[in-house]
Amino acid sequence: MAKNAELLIRAGFVNKEMAGVYSYLPLGLRVFKKIENIIRKEMNALGAEELFLSSFHPKENWVTTGRWEAMDDLYKVIDSSGREVALGPTHEEIITPIAKKFISSYRDLPKAAYQFQTKFRMELRSKSGVLRGREFVMKDLYSFHADEKDFETYYEAVKDAYKRIFEAVGLGSITYLTFASGGTFSKYSHEFQTITDAGEDTIFVDEKKRIAVNKEVNNEEVLKDLDLDKKDLVEKKAIEVGNIFPLKTKFSSAFDFNYTDESGGKKPVIMGCYGIGLGRLMGTIAEALSDDKGLVWPKSVAPFSVHLITLGEEGGQAAKKALELHDDLESRGVDVLLDDRSLRAGEKFADADLIGIPLRVVVSDKSLQSGGYEIKERTKSEAKIIKDIHSILSLL
Amino acid sequence: MAKNAELLIRAGFVNKEMAGVYSYLPLGLRVFKKIENIIRKEMNALGAEELFLSSFHPKENWVTTGRWEAMDDLYKVIDSSGREVALGPTHEEIITPIAKKFISSYRDLPKAAYQFQTKFRMELRSKSGVLRGREFVMKDLYSFHADEKDFETYYEAVKDAYKRIFEAVGLGSITYLTFASGGTFSKYSHEFQTITDAGEDTIFVDEKKRIAVNKEVNNEEVLKDLDLDKKDLVEKKAIEVGNIFPLKTKFSSAFDFNYTDESGGKKPVIMGCYGIGLGRLMGTIAEALSDDKGLVWPKSVAPFSVHLITLGEEGGQAAKKALELHDDLESRGVDVLLDDRSLRAGEKFADADLIGIPLRVVVSDKSLQSGGYEIKERTKSEAKIIKDIHSILSLL
Repeated sequence: MAKNAELLIRAGFVNKEMAGVYSYLPLGLRVFKKIENIIRKEMNALGAEELFLSSFHPKENWVTTGRWEAMDDLYKVIDSSGREVALGPTHEEIITPIAKKFISSYRDLPKAAYQFQTKFRMELRSKSGVLRGREFVMKDLYSFHADEKDFETYYEAVKDAYKRIFEAVGLGSITYLTFASGGTFSKYSHEFQTITDAGEDTIFVDEKKRIAVNKEVNNEEVLKDLDLDKKDLVEKKAIEVGNIFPLKTKFSSAFDFNYTDESGGKKPVIMGCYGIGLGRLMGTIAEALSDDKGLVWPKSVAPFSVHLITLGEEGGQAAKKALELHDDLESRGVDVLLDDRSLRAGEKFADADLIGIPLRVVVSDKSLQSGGYEIKERTKSEAKIIKDIHSILSLL
Repeated sequence: MAKNAELLIRAGFVNKEMAGVYSYLPLGLRVFKKIENIIRKEMNALGAEELFLSSFHPKENWVTTGRWEAMDDLYKVIDSSGREVALGPTHEEIITPIAKKFISSYRDLPKAAYQFQTKFRMELRSKSGVLRGREFVMKDLYSFHADEKDFETYYEAVKDAYKRIFEAVGLGSITYLTFASGGTFSKYSHEFQTITDAGEDTIFVDEKKRIAVNKEVNNEEVLKDLDLDKKDLVEKKAIEVGNIFPLKTKFSSAFDFNYTDESGGKKPVIMGCYGIGLGRLMGTIAEALSDDKGLVWPKSVAPFSVHLITLGEEGGQAAKKALELHDDLESRGVDVLLDDRSLRAGEKFADADLIGIPLRVVVSDKSLQSGGYEIKERTKSEAKIIKDIHSILSLL
């Protein structure tokens, strides 16, 4: 089993229902929601509006774009009326007709909309844990522009927003903007690739320039175009944590989606799409930042800020003090996971390491005799005794 | 077309993709999220933990409960491996095996978990707009108990939470706790039914006692049991906005889900389930509270608090003042929908009535000459001039 799934299951973050299908348990959902909010903040700052598009897609929309037959991993379902419908693996076929209803003039442009929605893809092999699922929640953003220049400005702004997102979730230093093929209608698309041995992709990284190219465009012509030197490139395994893609007029042409410009002329709307898989991002953090003891969550996405462990007899002095500390921290808005189970210290410490909350606080008779609480950061090996809550707050 | 769908589509809250399948546009999603947060607050207060269960369900889970064949509206999908899987219409088949992994002793009980997740049901007729969809988001809560008494206490607590939820979204006065059949293994289940002519259900209401019975249990025996008198009952059309259901040991028995009690004996876990459809609740508010001019949102779930309309020339005095007011309100945390389109006053007022935001504020040369802004509450007919922002804030 993939390391991410093995750890996330053992630590109680997800439950595997079948290959490529996972449920998110309370711990996992807390991480998920924190990632979601980091992304939402950046999407709103880009002026994009949040919406929620359907999972069932009419067949005719997919026939219109030619993808009903062309897309191998499309789930087709027989509806109650006996008709075939698609289970959405992406949402261009839904957002484009909606945008067409609301955009008709240059005055209506630019526009951008995004969602967090489950995607369904008929993956043949689903062996990478939560990294590649048959169902998975994605943030997908779509933008609509009057001309290339406006599109390019927005595309660059999304690139910057993506960098901030991967920085915020703790993957900034190992995530590279990677040039990929733009398909038949665009020079390049861009991926954000996070270096880790579990990666399914191979990329070639210029560590100084902090950019990379993927396998498909690793050729002389592209390297020259990007001013990269073959001998500066290092081959790495990586996970694609995000991609941004110039759709140009592919979907607007298919749906006859045009606008009227200032001189009354009819022009096709220029589109872009921009994706981030939330489960995959969570799985990548699990893969890339964990150690031999378990998960290691960055503060920004940790399910709780403090893992509070009581040792000693039930209802004893340490248990009472721990409960006081718990309530004090919660009243200050600090999320605390309380472990007051009657288990040996070793088991509770091992579980804390496995779950990977940034700060462990132990209240025991021993710690109280030493004058307070014992704290240990997940990424450090030494514990120390502190006297009061302020030393905890300063570490959050 | 059903009134709820007709209004929600025309006002730009939802887009109809096909019968029973809707996308939520930005205005609709704002209402949706407010409803979600009202429900989430009550679920958390019940001590339930939020999680997010998969949409694809293994066939074997449904075979285990006997519902693979018995449930007519189950979507069955052929997976990539050639196997059949179910698209979840409800989640007992997923939550029960998960709960079994984490609950083994009386010390682990009680527990409760809930989610907001899309459900798929193969409805033959989907003619009620967003009230009855082929895909729809539900809040489903599941609770797990050691004995009947503990279950019943929790069940009553959920009943009260549901009352507060329907009160909070503005349907309290027209929503009735309704006794329904408990199936083969329980005396009653309970529905919350909201009175409106668009309702698909028929209920019999005792308006004084504020309870009702549905068609299936409207018989002498039940009326006697509930201390109701046939002549006090009024027949009404209603929409089922929520239901709570004693599952007893139906699913724990199927999955052999037992716990060890204090004396070491093995006992089946007692379960309950509790649902609210979010789209249906939104549609019910649209049906029940709208008037001949359009939607009427209660403050608690309105997409914005203020609908701010500018009249007069672009960039003129009124437009400037409106922008100042907009920024001032937003800086105080008030959500404002700004309509600065170059349209006639009549059109903009009609749109404001259609969208149904509780407070309309107009800034025009005329209002400025009269000394300020013109305000009108959506549920009142007369507008009045106010001098400053504080009169607006006092109405929110």
